[in-house]
Amino acid sequence: MLVVMQAQATEDQVRAVSQKIEALGYRAHPMPGAQRTAIGITGNKGEVESGTLEEMPGVQEVIRVSKPYKLVSRDTKPDNTVVKFPGSQVTIGGPDLAIIAGPCGIETRDQAFKIAERVARAGARFFRGGAYKPRTSPYSFQGLGEEGLKIMAEIRDQFGLLIVTEAVDYESLDLVDQYADVIQIGARNMQNFSLLKRAGRARKPVLLKRGISATLEEFLMAAEYIMSEGNYNIVLCERGVRTFTDHTRNTLDLSIVPAVQRLSHLPIIVDPSHGTGKRNKVTPLSRAAVAVGADGLIVEVHHDPDRALSDGMQSLFPDQFDALMQQVKQIAAVLGRNVPIKSNVPTELTNSAD
Amino acid sequence: MLVVMQAQATEDQVRAVSQKIEALGYRAHPMPGAQRTAIGITGNKGEVESGTLEEMPGVQEVIRVSKPYKLVSRDTKPDNTVVKFPGSQVTIGGPDLAIIAGPCGIETRDQAFKIAERVARAGARFFRGGAYKPRTSPYSFQGLGEEGLKIMAEIRDQFGLLIVTEAVDYESLDLVDQYADVIQIGARNMQNFSLLKRAGRARKPVLLKRGISATLEEFLMAAEYIMSEGNYNIVLCERGVRTFTDHTRNTLDLSIVPAVQRLSHLPIIVDPSHGTGKRNKVTPLSRAAVAVGADGLIVEVHHDPDRALSDGMQSLFPDQFDALMQQVKQIAAVLGRNVPIKSNVPTELTNSAD
Amino acid sequence: MLVVMQAQATEDQVRAVSQKIEALGYRAHPMPGAQRTAIGITGNKGEVESGTLEEMPGVQEVIRVSKPYKLVSRDTKPDNTVVKFPGSQVTIGGPDLAIIAGPCGIETRDQAFKIAERVARAGARFFRGGAYKPRTSPYSFQGLGEEGLKIMAEIRDQFGLLIVTEAVDYESLDLVDQYADVIQIGARNMQNFSLLKRAGRARKPVLLKRGISATLEEFLMAAEYIMSEGNYNIVLCERGVRTFTDHTRNTLDLSIVPAVQRLSHLPIIVDPSHGTGKRNKVTPLSRAAVAVGADGLIVEVHHDPDRALSDGMQSLFPDQFDALMQQVKQIAAVLGRNVPIKSNVPTELTNSAD
Amino acid sequence: MLVVMQAQATEDQVRAVSQKIEALGYRAHPMPGAQRTAIGITGNKGEVESGTLEEMPGVQEVIRVSKPYKLVSRDTKPDNTVVKFPGSQVTIGGPDLAIIAGPCGIETRDQAFKIAERVARAGARFFRGGAYKPRTSPYSFQGLGEEGLKIMAEIRDQFGLLIVTEAVDYESLDLVDQYADVIQIGARNMQNFSLLKRAGRARKPVLLKRGISATLEEFLMAAEYIMSEGNYNIVLCERGVRTFTDHTRNTLDLSIVPAVQRLSHLPIIVDPSHGTGKRNKVTPLSRAAVAVGADGLIVEVHHDPDRALSDGMQSLFPDQFDALMQQVKQIAAVLGRNVPIKSNVPTELTNSAD
Repeated sequence: MLVVMQAQATEDQVRAVSQKIEALGYRAHPMPGAQRTAIGITGNKGEVESGTLEEMPGVQEVIRVSKPYKLVSRDTKPDNTVVKFPGSQVTIGGPDLAIIAGPCGIETRDQAFKIAERVARAGARFFRGGAYKPRTSPYSFQGLGEEGLKIMAEIRDQFGLLIVTEAVDYESLDLVDQYADVIQIGARNMQNFSLLKRAGRARKPVLLKRGISATLEEFLMAAEYIMSEGNYNIVLCERGVRTFTDHTRNTLDLSIVPAVQRLSHLPIIVDPSHGTGKRNKVTPLSRAAVAVGADGLIVEVHHDPDRALSDGMQSLFPDQFDALMQQVKQIAAVLGRNVPIKSNVPTELTNSAD
Repeated sequence: MLVVMQAQATEDQVRAVSQKIEALGYRAHPMPGAQRTAIGITGNKGEVESGTLEEMPGVQEVIRVSKPYKLVSRDTKPDNTVVKFPGSQVTIGGPDLAIIAGPCGIETRDQAFKIAERVARAGARFFRGGAYKPRTSPYSFQGLGEEGLKIMAEIRDQFGLLIVTEAVDYESLDLVDQYADVIQIGARNMQNFSLLKRAGRARKPVLLKRGISATLEEFLMAAEYIMSEGNYNIVLCERGVRTFTDHTRNTLDLSIVPAVQRLSHLPIIVDPSHGTGKRNKVTPLSRAAVAVGADGLIVEVHHDPDRALSDGMQSLFPDQFDALMQQVKQIAAVLGRNVPIKSNVPTELTNSAD
Repeated sequence: MLVVMQAQATEDQVRAVSQKIEALGYRAHPMPGAQRTAIGITGNKGEVESGTLEEMPGVQEVIRVSKPYKLVSRDTKPDNTVVKFPGSQVTIGGPDLAIIAGPCGIETRDQAFKIAERVARAGARFFRGGAYKPRTSPYSFQGLGEEGLKIMAEIRDQFGLLIVTEAVDYESLDLVDQYADVIQIGARNMQNFSLLKRAGRARKPVLLKRGISATLEEFLMAAEYIMSEGNYNIVLCERGVRTFTDHTRNTLDLSIVPAVQRLSHLPIIVDPSHGTGKRNKVTPLSRAAVAVGADGLIVEVHHDPDRALSDGMQSLFPDQFDALMQQVKQIAAVLGRNVPIKSNVPTELTNSAD
Repeated sequence: MLVVMQAQATEDQVRAVSQKIEALGYRAHPMPGAQRTAIGITGNKGEVESGTLEEMPGVQEVIRVSKPYKLVSRDTKPDNTVVKFPGSQVTIGGPDLAIIAGPCGIETRDQAFKIAERVARAGARFFRGGAYKPRTSPYSFQGLGEEGLKIMAEIRDQFGLLIVTEAVDYESLDLVDQYADVIQIGARNMQNFSLLKRAGRARKPVLLKRGISATLEEFLMAAEYIMSEGNYNIVLCERGVRTFTDHTRNTLDLSIVPAVQRLSHLPIIVDPSHGTGKRNKVTPLSRAAVAVGADGLIVEVHHDPDRALSDGMQSLFPDQFDALMQQVKQIAAVLGRNVPIKSNVPTELTNSAD
């Protein structure tokens, strides 16, 4: 914490602020400058409220300095976290990129299997699909619930894909923890602290999506909530933030990838489907996400997006997903990372927006 | 829904889009214009996905037209909703402004009673205080839980104040429904749809705070979630949105008050404490909120903000709250509304920022 | 400037940063804390670049502290600036609110006179109207140029109104300085520093509109540009900022009024017409602007908005402006300020959005 | 334009709106729907104001449909624009990526030559450097003016680099047009329409930077201003937009690259230096910009950023720029594009944020 005094603050005012700081149990460090005096505060545990100081005579402003996250910080654990899955070679945060693909929502067994077959063949190691859908309207399709989870468990057995799916409350979280391999916490619940704590007591890794207007600090603090309950396997996910722009549904903030990697040991992946909301932007932004250094992608794929019950307009056709995999594999190679697909034939790339 | 064709779209392309629309079960209305053709779509129930159409040859863009909210709309109920409380003359949405005041969090019985005594004396009819605090950090004060609810129930008995307090999950919602008079859903949970549905099955009115980056439509849809479960007593609350500005913690968006009143029958109040995050801005913005036409205010008051365990820097001192009440009473009178306090002595107002 | 070291930074790293600071010609103030060390820097003139420091081993982040504005600051001039007009009793920043009204653009002599007659009769002391219109499209009406300025000069002679109009480049600024009473710099030119400097050398007061995404600091620095060239008569104007919201054209940020008044001695008025972009929001937000403590309003009025060549949808009808004047006069009175109109009959205010 | 009627609008109200539309000289297309009626309007030239219609009884809202840009649109010119330079093989918008590099500002002849030598050797074909600096503070370094332009003209002669530099007003624009190869219009002047028109009458190509909160439409309309005066050689540049985030100075919006390419024939490059404001983010975001499909990069490089008079903290060291060139060359190859440097030795890329 730092208190900046006004230019015309008197020595008495500086002294009063320093005494107040000491009275609150901290240590004051006055620094007289050419124009004004600033007073550093040390010894605070992040709980001190700056209100009193800000209102004192002669005070210009109070600036918070300490960062409140601890367990998720590189200060605490310098090495990258690599999330592992029992009985599988697949990891998130290691040299292989994690590619998670599938429909927005599980609609029928047939739909889910058709898509799973295609994304598995294209090389994805994770299957995504919503059984519990947080929809803006109560009148929209809300997901199949446990029935959807069972379909995904079958998909794991049949295709060897690891299952990623969202939990929206305690009940669904317990079921997701039971049926799936990764528990997704969606953007709308990034500050649903009750749910975060419950996820922190689950056994499975958590995929935590950035809230639509979350700062980097809030994002890391949400992960801190999960970790503070004992679950250390967390994957962060950038999925676009809300801005004034209108050419995409959200603005994909790729700069948060290196920013997270600097401050935290946790892996971070990117969701170009929600991040743009438009099918024709998903492939270019997937390339960009891999190029910026993300640890993976989560992409919506649907074999019949016209009839999708949700988010059809941002879902790739399976053929488009095949092409995407080829492209990101080549980009990943430039960064010394791998996308574990068999074939490696470069697909033709057009200059314009695919 | 409206499909806008490109300027150079051919007649065949227009026809193909129209046929697609009809094949999806809707009716197409092509409108040839000077520069380009637009095709109106009618018959949609809000579930159609624009993806397919947007990707068809010759299509420029697809524009959504219908608004998805129904029960909260003035189309459905032209008259203002006035929330009533059994055994009390107090209302929200009627001619009297609803003034809700109290500390950010209930810390001790003594603290809560001291503040309740002051806000009751100043004329507030509602007491606010958090028993369950959604805090950004897991290491911050999280509230007293049920113990805090019991303290507030005592305050109702002693001072005749109606109790407003936040619920953060099923368990706390059931307890708040039992102990309090108004169930608050906080900004971070505005799209926690599970919680909204549960609040829709509660007996008590719901105070729904706008999410930090919620559009007007999302805000009304969150209320629609509650109402679709049968709870018609909802009070909306503007509490500031997240923008690029840094002179206040959030940007208080007062224009949403007339915007809500135009589209919905629900009352809307304003929270200048969270909306600004700075004590010295609370009184000017409270005046502005009443002047714009809000149905009430929710204000943080603390007798000793220096020692508050949360949000001290935005809490008014009780004397400041007294002055605020005098000022808003006079402004309310200009709009033909009332703040039910006894005395009416104008306090001196300074030109500068209080 | 404050350098925050990482938690695990070594003593050598702290020493290296301190030496670097001293080598750059400043003074370093290391403050060891419980978790990490922070190093205060004094002696900087606002020109030091934090880049080097930020990249040094052990550095977490660098925080800028000093505010770069000088002449516009209350530190420099504690008393409010009151802008005066030679040969007139009218002021901006004094006890009387400045009400500026008129059409978006001057279209014809007849149109301008019709509107001027009405706004003068309603009590406005300033007439606004654009002769040079910064339009988003090159194909939109661009204003009458000097012809428009001549019409406004005639209006001053006939109705005794002071003329406020926008300059968009050197040539128009020289003409506006010659014909008008207040030179408006529009939001789009708030950081057109060449134009600001030229305005700083003009004789007439400057009305400086906040840029659509300007921070408080950038806004004050734009005023500093003008003042640094010798023109001390500056009136600031909040006109809405760009956010994610879509229910108004911009988001009117009324909290900047008390924020400016705290930091600067300059008067600040509010533009609810551009601030909302919707006629039905202008009156409620005008009341709010006066209630928050603004020094005046600038409002678009048109007798025939359907045929207005620009911004018709946000222009009030003259009768609506009459009603607005009655309402804001009453609100102003609550704050001890005056709107100098003759009659004082309260108009009926409705609860809903006018 | 589309008028959406309220659900309970009467037939008379629908008829009245249609008659109003026809009276305004347009054609009305009523479309009765299940819930409400919408009325399409054709024949408008972009000048009709929606105000009247929006205020009519029974009207819910008015939606604008037509896009106002013409010359910059792919509707007008389907093929990509490739900007050529007389007497040079270099292009912007062709298969070779345009790499523009140099210091933020020209400070001395020695500084400029040292940096030019390095960026030329690394493979850049364009040299950037500011002679006229739009600085937030009037007390900051404002550039060398014509002296700086002369230094850059010498650099062209010596190193064969094409010169890109910013103009801030008529006078500087005329000089830049004379000395340089590309006239840059900065973000702050993106809606300085007088300057845009003047640039439209210059002989040299224009590099137009996106305003800090410009929508895609406003960005294209700014280009339309230039083109409407006869200058068809325009290069667009994304340089970050202002959002709520605080981990970078701006939020680089890479999704605008495919969005521009879909709507316009103009080339678009990316500025990762201003787009992030942090040296350690420039290289990852440069890779991402090339991967998303940008036609080039503009990057700040300084041999001694600690002593740079502006933007030192976002300038790369020359060695970092060498590494960046190697990386983007490899990424470009994946997209079938070229960065014309000699050597091709892959540099080691780290997983974390460089």
